Amino acid sequence: MPVPQGYRLAGVYAGIKRNPEKNDVALVVSDRPAAAAGVYTQNLVFAAPVGLDRGRTPSDRIRAVVVNSGNANACTGERGDRDAARMAELAAQTCGAQPEQALVLSTGVIGNFLPMDKIEAGIRRAAESLGSDEAALVSAARGMLTTDTCHKLAGRTLEIAGRTIQITGMAKGAAMIGPRMATMLGLILSDAALTPAAAQQSLSTAVEDSFNCISVDGHMSTNDTVLLLANGAAGGEPLAGADLAAFQTALREVCTELAQAIPADGEGATHLVTIDVGGCANRQAAHAIAKTVAESVLVKTAIAGADPNWGRIVSAAGYAGVSFNPAGVHLRLNGVLIYERGAPVAFDEAAVSQSIRDQRATSIVLGFSEGEASVRFWTTDLTAEYVRLNADYRT
Amino acid sequence: MPVPQGYRLAGVYAGIKRNPEKNDVALVVSDRPAAAAGVYTQNLVFAAPVGLDRGRTPSDRIRAVVVNSGNANACTGERGDRDAARMAELAAQTCGAQPEQALVLSTGVIGNFLPMDKIEAGIRRAAESLGSDEAALVSAARGMLTTDTCHKLAGRTLEIAGRTIQITGMAKGAAMIGPRMATMLGLILSDAALTPAAAQQSLSTAVEDSFNCISVDGHMSTNDTVLLLANGAAGGEPLAGADLAAFQTALREVCTELAQAIPADGEGATHLVTIDVGGCANRQAAHAIAKTVAESVLVKTAIAGADPNWGRIVSAAGYAGVSFNPAGVHLRLNGVLIYERGAPVAFDEAAVSQSIRDQRATSIVLGFSEGEASVRFWTTDLTAEYVRLNADYRT
Repeated sequence: MPVPQGYRLAGVYAGIKRNPEKNDVALVVSDRPAAAAGVYTQNLVFAAPVGLDRGRTPSDRIRAVVVNSGNANACTGERGDRDAARMAELAAQTCGAQPEQALVLSTGVIGNFLPMDKIEAGIRRAAESLGSDEAALVSAARGMLTTDTCHKLAGRTLEIAGRTIQITGMAKGAAMIGPRMATMLGLILSDAALTPAAAQQSLSTAVEDSFNCISVDGHMSTNDTVLLLANGAAGGEPLAGADLAAFQTALREVCTELAQAIPADGEGATHLVTIDVGGCANRQAAHAIAKTVAESVLVKTAIAGADPNWGRIVSAAGYAGVSFNPAGVHLRLNGVLIYERGAPVAFDEAAVSQSIRDQRATSIVLGFSEGEASVRFWTTDLTAEYVRLNADYRT
Repeated sequence: MPVPQGYRLAGVYAGIKRNPEKNDVALVVSDRPAAAAGVYTQNLVFAAPVGLDRGRTPSDRIRAVVVNSGNANACTGERGDRDAARMAELAAQTCGAQPEQALVLSTGVIGNFLPMDKIEAGIRRAAESLGSDEAALVSAARGMLTTDTCHKLAGRTLEIAGRTIQITGMAKGAAMIGPRMATMLGLILSDAALTPAAAQQSLSTAVEDSFNCISVDGHMSTNDTVLLLANGAAGGEPLAGADLAAFQTALREVCTELAQAIPADGEGATHLVTIDVGGCANRQAAHAIAKTVAESVLVKTAIAGADPNWGRIVSAAGYAGVSFNPAGVHLRLNGVLIYERGAPVAFDEAAVSQSIRDQRATSIVLGFSEGEASVRFWTTDLTAEYVRLNADYRT
């Protein structure tokens, strides 16, 4: 996976996490001011770095992004705000930029103050080991992980108006993942030239179909942030028209790939569930139904148990707060039609159960007779292992 | 627990459930026409008996209620409607009433047709064993259970205008319990005289503070129903004014006791969690926050693990869709102040963890600075055992 031109990255272990095998600070530096956009949690209780970044994006002059994992710097009051500002200042210093030219991402436990001495030392060491090869990219991507079992990268290379443009993104997330916001940490770098407005619009649109369409546990985090940096190192004027559209398509693909990787790595999950809701009056209705099905613990436990308990799926749709004709509903589970026009269809229950058991991917297709709008949504099953992981997260 | 005057009840095993130790059909007969009121699921996908009862309440002439467990008669199309109507007809016949004078409650697996031959035989046998003592009451209460580990009864005896009035209720529910509706099956019998309008208003108000303030898994069922019958056997004119208010207070107490018994018996639960939300602009806001906290699987798993992970509680409040000042939030866990004015308070984490571990009751008190409205809500923790029970419910 190539790093876009004009960026250098590093990830280091700074001592925030207990396990020194893991990275917990990452630094990304752009050699020139980049257009930057952000999409943030809609949680009223948002972390200090979210407040800081929100005030600084969209921007046309971002030079650095600093990330820490192991501590969310959330619910930390004014001291948390000062710590986030200090992190930005330290990151900006590493490349001779102004404090306001840096953004901050934090993830981890809520409610502890940042160990600023460790963070400061970590940023300095990261600055000394910046690189622009794949190893540097992976070390930075590892710096944003918490309970993830693997780092998450996605990228696209495209030719636009005779120039090669690279989009490379990294993400983290395995729990406290709910929709209607960025739902995790994501950082997408590109060497394309974009105006700040185009960057923001491109990112907001891409997030709507990707990070806003995933759920692990429906719990909206205090820290969720997706950032896009576009530094123009590929050359040329800011993209517009068909060129911008081509960039946006590739950006959406990168965001979708990263978003899917999150429930695929969901804590304790044994299934990645794709929920296609169609035939709705509008996209909002389809999204509401998909989200409600995705977050029903009864649906999720049934899939964990390979139980084609479709009544739980249909009844979850019924309390999504969306009006529909129950007699117009149909449902397919792993391709098999099991409910049609408000009544069950005879099907081979053992075979469907076996198909759920045999594969990690599960498909739910829920159709309505209200219109043409649809949405694709991803979630996990819910296993006893998820409960064990989250009952013992801090202890 | 006394049975109110003028009612006879029975519960029998009719062969719907696999285990012949359990009852699965119950019959309640009033010797005279009763005022009847109902509160029903708000799920668009509602079961056949819900549709039937909704059309028959409020009423001034109900004579019988028939209950079956083990089969929800939900998502069963027109045949399900015919089966529900036939159940009512069979119940009415046992006391010489018209078919329209009976109501029906069903609970169990969604999507299977009722075994009408077994139901018919069960109703006949129940009619032969009707009684008005506590044993009869318990046998009927057991007839509505599914995965409950115990039957649920609550009652009050009160003196109104020189007459002794009895209110006795039964309920079932241990999962697929979400708020904004009746959330389970409940049947409350009284010998008070009430107009149908007073019965409906009394029940609706009582449900709002009781059955609508509990959640086990947030999954709104297709079948949830609470019925109130008031047959006037205690004598006198329909209650009004202060007499009606006294009745309503006792009814609310009965409903609250039954409602609490449901999360207390929540599947796999090791804690009954009481969530008090106060200082809100209005009751709706307080209810939305309490419900969101109650349904966060991260909050629920933390309590299962005796982890005072208050960040999960505060962040759940933040995505409830209610506006509040984050700097005005305080939180107490089992009486210990751990968060105040938007920042953590130093507290003895080990002691709070031990207090969660030591007792089945957990208290969350979440205060805001927006106004005077409050709500009390009950939920369970979420354990690996819940997941096991629900992954294997049908298999």
